[in-house]
Amino acid sequence: MIEIRAANEADFEGIWRIFQRVVAVGDSYVFPPDATREDARGYWLSTYFKTFVAIMDGAVAGMYKLRPNNVGLGAHVSNASFMVDPGCQRHGIGKAMGYHCLEEARRDGYQAMQFNFVVSTNTPAVRLWQQLGFEIVGTLPKSFRHAALGLVDAYVMHRFLD
Amino acid sequence: MIEIRAANEADFEGIWRIFQRVVAVGDSYVFPPDATREDARGYWLSTYFKTFVAIMDGAVAGMYKLRPNNVGLGAHVSNASFMVDPGCQRHGIGKAMGYHCLEEARRDGYQAMQFNFVVSTNTPAVRLWQQLGFEIVGTLPKSFRHAALGLVDAYVMHRFLD
Repeated sequence: MIEIRAANEADFEGIWRIFQRVVAVGDSYVFPPDATREDARGYWLSTYFKTFVAIMDGAVAGMYKLRPNNVGLGAHVSNASFMVDPGCQRHGIGKAMGYHCLEEARRDGYQAMQFNFVVSTNTPAVRLWQQLGFEIVGTLPKSFRHAALGLVDAYVMHRFLD
Repeated sequence: MIEIRAANEADFEGIWRIFQRVVAVGDSYVFPPDATREDARGYWLSTYFKTFVAIMDGAVAGMYKLRPNNVGLGAHVSNASFMVDPGCQRHGIGKAMGYHCLEEARRDGYQAMQFNFVVSTNTPAVRLWQQLGFEIVGTLPKSFRHAALGLVDAYVMHRFLD
């Protein structure tokens, strides 16, 4: 059973634990392995965007944030970021958060959602977003320094909301 | 005669004047027409990136900034933004700043340069970047609310540095 709700300050230890586990692998996010608590806080908790957590077995198992991808004349397109605890894979947490995020974005009146940097070798993420209606609209060549694979492409993915 | 040099605080009034003129048109940058001095300062002058100004006839006629497009595992790709005073077009200021910026990025050790949001209808900019070796690597559909044309595409443009 997964519950998704707005994040609060008390969730930060759980968010920080997941952040550390995700960036330690170096296969999906640009943060270096030695990124700090303050990096994690700045990225995940702010008054400038909305953050949600997925709770499984009473603990934070994933989180996402939603915000405009640009100000002003680009603010009708949303942007979102997701992390799932590497120890909680294969429970549908990413997919549940994805659907929740699309609904939230529709409710907020956005016309589209864009992911600016999906690592091309992160096949589970690319497939999930394609399942959820996103298309690859850009390929950023050799833009991610994968810890194991070296320089690999990243994708820009997009879908309209309706 | 165009001189390009590092920006300093005394250049801000010139930068602000150009910023206002550019965003008033609503055809190239996402800032709304009522963007403030502080928006302009935050965007153009910061210790987090390098800013350069193009001086023509003793006044600021354009500016660009250069920074990593991402932190950590994406920091080998640079990002840059440019504005030219709409009253100083056709003097080659954009092209001169473009070459200067590419040299500066090479000197700083970047492996590539990426523009995240070039408005597709901004033909002079698209052509200039293509002349300077950039390719369109992504098309962001209906991502810019053009003041005259409504929703239009934006491009992601990229080139490797060598």
